Amino acid sequence: VTGPPRTPCPDGYASGMTVPAYRRLSVEQRRSQLIRAALGLFARRVPEEVSLDDVAVEAGVSRPLVYRYFPGGRQQLYEAAVRSAAEELERCFDEPRTGPLTRRLARALRRYLAFVDEHDTGFVALLRGGGVVARTDAIVDGVRRAAAAQILLHLAVPRPGPRLRMTVRTWITAVEGASLIWLDEGKQPDVEELCGWLLDHFVALLVATAAHDTQTAEVVRGALAQEPADGPVGILARRVLPVVGDAAHLLAPSTKT
Amino acid sequence: VTGPPRTPCPDGYASGMTVPAYRRLSVEQRRSQLIRAALGLFARRVPEEVSLDDVAVEAGVSRPLVYRYFPGGRQQLYEAAVRSAAEELERCFDEPRTGPLTRRLARALRRYLAFVDEHDTGFVALLRGGGVVARTDAIVDGVRRAAAAQILLHLAVPRPGPRLRMTVRTWITAVEGASLIWLDEGKQPDVEELCGWLLDHFVALLVATAAHDTQTAEVVRGALAQEPADGPVGILARRVLPVVGDAAHLLAPSTKT
Repeated sequence: VTGPPRTPCPDGYASGMTVPAYRRLSVEQRRSQLIRAALGLFARRVPEEVSLDDVAVEAGVSRPLVYRYFPGGRQQLYEAAVRSAAEELERCFDEPRTGPLTRRLARALRRYLAFVDEHDTGFVALLRGGGVVARTDAIVDGVRRAAAAQILLHLAVPRPGPRLRMTVRTWITAVEGASLIWLDEGKQPDVEELCGWLLDHFVALLVATAAHDTQTAEVVRGALAQEPADGPVGILARRVLPVVGDAAHLLAPSTKT
Repeated sequence: VTGPPRTPCPDGYASGMTVPAYRRLSVEQRRSQLIRAALGLFARRVPEEVSLDDVAVEAGVSRPLVYRYFPGGRQQLYEAAVRSAAEELERCFDEPRTGPLTRRLARALRRYLAFVDEHDTGFVALLRGGGVVARTDAIVDGVRRAAAAQILLHLAVPRPGPRLRMTVRTWITAVEGASLIWLDEGKQPDVEELCGWLLDHFVALLVATAAHDTQTAEVVRGALAQEPADGPVGILARRVLPVVGDAAHLLAPSTKT
């Protein structure tokens, strides 16, 4: 295993097939190009069905070139692709900490769901594990941890307690699970509706946790004060009221039991 | 691969080690005994570190006996153990369809969490995938589907629409994720608190979905009518009110935008 060349080098020539005219690229540019080509293939096929030869064809470069950049073969290419995807995913949650919480979260969610939409089969394979994928578990966990840390920063809690941490981590799991279900259901409903529902899920879960955790209750009070009436939380509140309105008996505890 | 013997047969004898006196067991009883022993080991060690020899020691039987029942080796034993665990898990959600919904769900959740608590490392390995585990994905998916179908039966909706289905499936993913986080956090908080929080999560998510889906809204209305004021939904409602009470501005949409 020699690793990719450290200085720009002339690319090889594909023999016997038509190839787009080569541009001179730096090592980093070439590497990115190959990883992009691989991610394009992983989006449509399971990792086991993508060979370095396929990547060469997809990128329009010679096979020896791909082998030179990824001497570790398919596994090395796959790990590099997953690492690149993980960096992109972690950037999804990078959002200025101003304005109503749901507006920030909606922007992050839209970026995340666009990633899921684009990567499709590769996203499923990555999260389902097994086969060539297994060694990337730690990378995926890193993304989950980064997303949880970012959300806790947005909640502006210096020392989040176990209940608030579990709430955020569980919601991230739920977003992941819902994304897989969404792909499984042929991408229904549309991304905007899914995004809105996941936001409502976050608000509902946070409010439910607040019922038994004073720290989360403080977070909810602070966040609600900043939400505009015409934002998603206002709409949710006004639509929920008539549904639960008939259950007034729940607000008056019985004297039995 | 010949499969286990089809008629009761005398067990082999362990040589060179002390072994508890053999009882005569039927083929099915012996098979169950070996699977129980294997599950006991998987609860403490990752599957890759459990050999058929270990199972023989754990069950107090001879090594040839274990190999006779599982001629396919470790993979066959592991799959049999996972199938047995899956059957136990599916029974968790088997609950009479009478009484308040949260009471039924709480009983199912308690059985599920007892399973998670008991199987521990094996539960994590199973859901994390990779290695010897990969081929059991379909069994795990079967449990998820069975759990979703059971919950939809309890919601008493003849033809559940996509939003209600996604709500139930996503919550099941969240329960799974929360169970893994719970194990990761050294089983904190205690099972009763975790169970209560997962129930609140279900109620909150169902109510949030009801905001935009008339079918779910009907389910919520029907379920709330059956909930007693001193049950978990009543407690949740009364504890949530003071937290969201300061956000009255959300109920009056502004005329801007």
